[in-house]
Amino acid sequence: MNRTLKDVAALVRARLLGDGSVEVRGVASIRSASPGDLVFVEEEKSLDEALASRAAAVIAGEFAAAAAAGKPILISGQPRLAFARAASLLVDSQRYEPGVHATAIVHPSVRIGNNVTIEAYVTIGQGAVIGSGTHIGAACHLGANVTLGENCNLLSHVTIYPGVKLGNRVIVHAGAVLGSDGFGYVRDSLSGCYEKFPQIGGLEVGDDVEIGANSTIDRGALDATVIAGGVKIDNLVHVAHNVRIGKNVVIAAQTGVSGSSVIEDNVIVGGQVGIADHVRIEEGAILGAQSGIPSNKVIRGKGIVFWGTPARPIREYLKELAVLARLAKKR
Amino acid sequence: MNRTLKDVAALVRARLLGDGSVEVRGVASIRSASPGDLVFVEEEKSLDEALASRAAAVIAGEFAAAAAAGKPILISGQPRLAFARAASLLVDSQRYEPGVHATAIVHPSVRIGNNVTIEAYVTIGQGAVIGSGTHIGAACHLGANVTLGENCNLLSHVTIYPGVKLGNRVIVHAGAVLGSDGFGYVRDSLSGCYEKFPQIGGLEVGDDVEIGANSTIDRGALDATVIAGGVKIDNLVHVAHNVRIGKNVVIAAQTGVSGSSVIEDNVIVGGQVGIADHVRIEEGAILGAQSGIPSNKVIRGKGIVFWGTPARPIREYLKELAVLARLAKKR
Amino acid sequence: MNRTLKDVAALVRARLLGDGSVEVRGVASIRSASPGDLVFVEEEKSLDEALASRAAAVIAGEFAAAAAAGKPILISGQPRLAFARAASLLVDSQRYEPGVHATAIVHPSVRIGNNVTIEAYVTIGQGAVIGSGTHIGAACHLGANVTLGENCNLLSHVTIYPGVKLGNRVIVHAGAVLGSDGFGYVRDSLSGCYEKFPQIGGLEVGDDVEIGANSTIDRGALDATVIAGGVKIDNLVHVAHNVRIGKNVVIAAQTGVSGSSVIEDNVIVGGQVGIADHVRIEEGAILGAQSGIPSNKVIRGKGIVFWGTPARPIREYLKELAVLARLAKKR
Repeated sequence: MNRTLKDVAALVRARLLGDGSVEVRGVASIRSASPGDLVFVEEEKSLDEALASRAAAVIAGEFAAAAAAGKPILISGQPRLAFARAASLLVDSQRYEPGVHATAIVHPSVRIGNNVTIEAYVTIGQGAVIGSGTHIGAACHLGANVTLGENCNLLSHVTIYPGVKLGNRVIVHAGAVLGSDGFGYVRDSLSGCYEKFPQIGGLEVGDDVEIGANSTIDRGALDATVIAGGVKIDNLVHVAHNVRIGKNVVIAAQTGVSGSSVIEDNVIVGGQVGIADHVRIEEGAILGAQSGIPSNKVIRGKGIVFWGTPARPIREYLKELAVLARLAKKR
Repeated sequence: MNRTLKDVAALVRARLLGDGSVEVRGVASIRSASPGDLVFVEEEKSLDEALASRAAAVIAGEFAAAAAAGKPILISGQPRLAFARAASLLVDSQRYEPGVHATAIVHPSVRIGNNVTIEAYVTIGQGAVIGSGTHIGAACHLGANVTLGENCNLLSHVTIYPGVKLGNRVIVHAGAVLGSDGFGYVRDSLSGCYEKFPQIGGLEVGDDVEIGANSTIDRGALDATVIAGGVKIDNLVHVAHNVRIGKNVVIAAQTGVSGSSVIEDNVIVGGQVGIADHVRIEEGAILGAQSGIPSNKVIRGKGIVFWGTPARPIREYLKELAVLARLAKKR
Repeated sequence: MNRTLKDVAALVRARLLGDGSVEVRGVASIRSASPGDLVFVEEEKSLDEALASRAAAVIAGEFAAAAAAGKPILISGQPRLAFARAASLLVDSQRYEPGVHATAIVHPSVRIGNNVTIEAYVTIGQGAVIGSGTHIGAACHLGANVTLGENCNLLSHVTIYPGVKLGNRVIVHAGAVLGSDGFGYVRDSLSGCYEKFPQIGGLEVGDDVEIGANSTIDRGALDATVIAGGVKIDNLVHVAHNVRIGKNVVIAAQTGVSGSSVIEDNVIVGGQVGIADHVRIEEGAILGAQSGIPSNKVIRGKGIVFWGTPARPIREYLKELAVLARLAKKR
């Protein structure tokens, strides 16, 4: 929807330089901007290109304050953030018509809040609770006693096993599976067969979590798997039983976290990382892509990047790689 | 459901110390036990904590036989196994009401055993056979001529391609795909284009297999992919065409097995392991997490742990890592 | 369906030796061939086994031209390719009855070509376009304004987010997710929270692409993710936002490609490879299984195999491994 730059500036807390009555109606990259679009630049070197683009206006950092601009500029201390917020105002995010589709099979005991949208072919089991403003996409399946908070968005084909609890504003992308049985067996030393260890714990997911397409998060064995608020999980990630993930942790695609491991607040985990069982990743550590953390290890170091398998501080790892390359060249 | 300790002891073949008339109604971890729960300890050092917990009774090893217990103890040579078996007695595992949901679309030619449950929005193709006691969860899709044994449990959104055969008591978690086309092409050396090699082989899965959420197992190209009895496969695992997996093999999450490889009985495969094509993992070998086995290799060594890429005995690998770290420190 | 060898020879452009009136009705491996089957051999050493098999005829290379054959032989410069083409003639590939199932929920605005099959419980949003001859499997979900070309085949449980465009003859296996949101956030430096960066770009998939089961391909952030024609993607592969993949690229299972990376034409990518963001893999390079390409790297070398993390030419990598093993043995 259209907004004046004056409005946008106020809402994203930016300082407006130029004509505030100009209207914008979308966001774009500099290269593909159309008239009416808002673009952003984080570095001074891209400013000229942005100003020369077809965009209606530019969000930029303080460096742009002195620019002899041909178009209005919104100055922000965090231009990328201001752009993201402007986008959420301007972009017609898919609006769902509230209501329960005639083909949805919702157990009569389910409690449904206001302005909930339940799409075609959804099935919801006994005792579930759906918070206001939540959207449940086509063909999702929610087991008995699942609880969803307010303003959640489940895309299509999501499966949520019985008893799982989600907070508010949780986004779950298509095909994700929440609350599946953990991978736990006991081997009978006589027969050599594996028998199922009980997988009856819960799964609790905090507010503002986003879970990527086809990711899987297992319920706890006897206690719960817990994902704190603000966690962002990419596609095809696996989280095992009894794992605890702290606030604002980011986990890139195809990473796996094994049973009972703990990831503390603000950790950043790259793609295809393997975290074995009973590991502790302490606050603020950064795990490089494909790194591997062996069982029972503790990784400590706010802001330090770890890499390799077994993961070590990246400086050590790069030094080892250099030494090895030199030795190989000598032969 | 409630059981007396005397009954539980008999059923899990444990020796009862104390009052056999005490009733238990669930299982729990020591920390979260409520009155009425059964807990277990494998190591003597945790026994006091278990006895001091709110649990009604404790399953433990022989070490507990002499304990001055404030509560009944069940002594077992395999306490974890006894606990798992007790759990399967006590925990109200989801009981499914037999019957075919009105919205399930089942081809009239499908043969359905007794006490089968087919949930909403399931579709089953021509000529399929569903064994007695089997449960097919919401929105599963079974192609033509699929055969399921008795007492299988398919959770929701499972896809089974035509002609796949499952044994008895097979559990398939949500979103898993069984019998998809293998990844096989022939490159036309003139055009540079890839053309599809026929993927028309079968997929046979033995008894007591469990397959994790969103895992994918391809059918064979011309012959069959075969998973033997007792195999346990975690989430997001990939098994390619023509692979043969032996009895009681365990495969952790996100591992991939490439075409025509053979994994013999009792092998243990960690998470994120990559097994290339035409590999043979011989009986009882153990592949550490993230290890990689190059094409055509044979891995031999019952009980030996292999690690790294290319995988080697872990002792060698750790020695190499130590040597490298020492060299890097010197520079 | 049955075909005479004379017909098959003409259609796959092979030279027929022997009785062209013999009929074949299927393809098989040498070991499992039944009378009536066609088999193939690529290497002379397997020719005798093929001729001794129960197969009706053999496709082979020039080396077989002089064989004193007990059965007809089809000589081809590319016997594997000729076999694949013969298979596509002979094997009753699943034929779908055209029509829209009564339970499919298709928005009235959707434009549907001729001979389209839409199976049970499919949902298709406003403004979608479905090309002639396309099959949409059970319980697929297509968002608004999705465009499918002609003769596409979507297996079951596929999700396609709004606005995604597929070319002709695209095959999408069960559970794949196309057009999901990219993994992009901006961290508010004050609150420490991550806010969603707009993920509103498109996804364009070219002709003759095949996408494996449970793979996920994200839409672009502001611009598009682009998959060129002839690309083959295995199961559980992840492709992030803004990635561009060139013609006839092959990507094996569980590989991940991070944001804004470019894979040029004819690249071959092994399984479990990790390609970080803003990488360029130049034309014709080959990435060995589990290799890892760090951010911003350029990989150059037609026909050269790269291996390890960070990926280097395989000769260097193997030399390094050898040096290291030697050093470790000395200690």
